[in-house]
Amino acid sequence: MKLLYPTSLELRPDAFTLPGVSALPYDVAAPLPAAHEDAEVLVTWGNSAEMLRGAAARMTRLQWVQSLAAGPNDVLKAGFPAHVRVTSGSGLHDHTVAEHTLGLLLVAARRFHEMRDAQRQRRWPGHLGGLQPDRPKGAFRTLQDARVLIWGFGSIGQRLAPLLTMLGAEVRGVARSAGERAGFPVFAADALPELLPETDALVMILPSSPETRHALSAALLAHLPRHAWVVNVGRGDTLDEGALVAALQQRRLGGAALDVFETEPLPESSPLWALENVIISPHAAGGRPQGAEALIRDNVARFLAGEPLRNLVAR
Amino acid sequence: MKLLYPTSLELRPDAFTLPGVSALPYDVAAPLPAAHEDAEVLVTWGNSAEMLRGAAARMTRLQWVQSLAAGPNDVLKAGFPAHVRVTSGSGLHDHTVAEHTLGLLLVAARRFHEMRDAQRQRRWPGHLGGLQPDRPKGAFRTLQDARVLIWGFGSIGQRLAPLLTMLGAEVRGVARSAGERAGFPVFAADALPELLPETDALVMILPSSPETRHALSAALLAHLPRHAWVVNVGRGDTLDEGALVAALQQRRLGGAALDVFETEPLPESSPLWALENVIISPHAAGGRPQGAEALIRDNVARFLAGEPLRNLVAR
Repeated sequence: MKLLYPTSLELRPDAFTLPGVSALPYDVAAPLPAAHEDAEVLVTWGNSAEMLRGAAARMTRLQWVQSLAAGPNDVLKAGFPAHVRVTSGSGLHDHTVAEHTLGLLLVAARRFHEMRDAQRQRRWPGHLGGLQPDRPKGAFRTLQDARVLIWGFGSIGQRLAPLLTMLGAEVRGVARSAGERAGFPVFAADALPELLPETDALVMILPSSPETRHALSAALLAHLPRHAWVVNVGRGDTLDEGALVAALQQRRLGGAALDVFETEPLPESSPLWALENVIISPHAAGGRPQGAEALIRDNVARFLAGEPLRNLVAR
Repeated sequence: MKLLYPTSLELRPDAFTLPGVSALPYDVAAPLPAAHEDAEVLVTWGNSAEMLRGAAARMTRLQWVQSLAAGPNDVLKAGFPAHVRVTSGSGLHDHTVAEHTLGLLLVAARRFHEMRDAQRQRRWPGHLGGLQPDRPKGAFRTLQDARVLIWGFGSIGQRLAPLLTMLGAEVRGVARSAGERAGFPVFAADALPELLPETDALVMILPSSPETRHALSAALLAHLPRHAWVVNVGRGDTLDEGALVAALQQRRLGGAALDVFETEPLPESSPLWALENVIISPHAAGGRPQGAEALIRDNVARFLAGEPLRNLVAR
C-alpha cells in the first residue's frame, strides 16, 4: 500500500510505516507528481485547494484521505469520489485550541486588549488597575463564578472545560445530544434560548457544515445578556457576522473575541476591525497538530485490517 | 474594643463584629475624624499615604492595623509606633493575581499583544496564524512543556502553579527555604544561577522589602535564555528596571509582561512603553480582596483572646 505524507509539518514516517506500507513525502503546495497518482492513501495538512482538486481528479486508486485538520472542509470541498473515505485530525488540536481559547477569554475578562491600546499611546490606564470591584454583576471581568457555555462540546471543549472550572467558572455544554459528558452538563441546541440569558461568555467550537451555517443567528444573539462575550474558535460561518456586528454596534453585547471569520483573511473593509471590544486573532488557535503520527499509525493498522477508521467524517 | 473598617470596598461589618467590638466605617481618602482617634484596631484598604501618616500620629490607643493588601508597604511606611502590630491581606488576592498572571503568560506566549497591534492597523497578521511549528525550541510560544519558574512561592504562587501544570508546564519555585511545597519542587535563591538557564518564563511574585530590592539584577537576568520572558506581578522594586530595559534593548531576553513598576503610574518617559515585547498592565492583578470579612473576623477573635494574629508582618 502506498501512502503519501505531507512535508508541511515534521513527521517521522517510521512511526506509521507498518509492514506492507510504502510511505512517501510530498509537497502540499505543488501539484501532485504523476509518479504519485497511484497512491491509495493521502495524508493532508495545509494543502492548497488546487493541489487537492488535482489529487481528487488524478488519484485513481485513492481509497482514503487522512486530514490532520480538526475540520477537513478543504478535503470535503475538493471533489474526491464518494467512495474515498475521509478521516479528520479531531483530537490533534485539543490542547492548542483550548489554550488559545482560554487566552482569548482572559484577554477579554482582564481587558488586556484595552491595556495594549493604552500602552501604544504611552498612557497608564489607571481605571483598569488599582482598587477594583470584585466580580461585579453585569460585567465579564473574571472567569471566577463566570457562567461559560461551550457550544460544540467535543474533544476541544472537553479539554477546555476543566481549565475553566479550575479558574472558578461554571461550565455547561451544548451538543447534538443532551446528557452529562466528561462530568459537565450538556444540553441540546433547542435549550439555547433558556441557556443564553444565563451566560457570561459563549464559546463557539462548531465545525463548518450546512447544518451549522449561521448557527449563532441574530435571534440567538438577542438572548445573550448585554455584558456577555462571544468567543469563536470553531469556524467562521457558524456565526452570523453581520448580526454580530449589529449587536456590537448597538451595544447589545459585551464583546467578541474571534479566531475565525466568514472570510479569511478578514477583509480590510470589515467593520469588525475597529469595533470596541472586538478582539481579532488570525486563525491562530490550532495549526499545530499534536500526536499526528500515532493517529496515522493507528488508522493505517485499521485500514490494513479492514477495521473501521477513527475520526471518519460523514460525507 | 473599637475597630475602624474602610468604605473603599464592600464589607458587611456584621461578619466581624464579635461581642465587645464596636465596628465603625471610615473614609480612606479623608483625614481620620477626631472622634475616631481612640480606636484600637484599624483595617486599611487603599488608604491615602496622608491618611495613614495622620492615623499613625494621632491614634494613641492603636494596637493593631489589619491591611487587606498582600504587601502592606503603605502601612509599614506610615510611621506607626513599633508596638502596633501589622497584619497583611495575604491570601485574599491568590485567585485574582493567579488569574491575571496566567493571562499575562498566555498573552505573551500566544502573542495577543502583537495581534492587537495588527488589529489597530486593520492588518491581518498572517504570520501569527495558520500553520505553526509545534512547541518550537528557543521560543516561548505555549505553556505546554514550558519551564516556568515562580520566584516567591507563597500562597499566590501555589494557586498559580497547578493552573500552569494543567496547561502542560513544568513548574518550579524559588523561596526562602528549599524543599517541596504544595507538591512542587522549591529551591532557595542561591540556586537561581542554575535554574534560570533552564527557564522559559520567570514569574516574580516577591514582596517589597530591603532584602528583595532589585532581587532580579542585571547579573541574574544574564542567566536567562534569550527567548525567556519575565513576568512581574509582585512589587516593582524587586526587579532592576534599568537592567531589564538594557537586556530587552540588546535582545538578550524574549520579553517582559509587567504589572508592577519601580514608579507607578509608569512615567511617560519610561523606555518600557515602546519596547518590543513588553506588555504593560497597570497594577491590575490584585485590587479585589476576597474573603476579607472572614480574615478580619478570625483575627478579631484572636486579638480578643490574646492569641497570635494571622498574617503578622515582621517589622
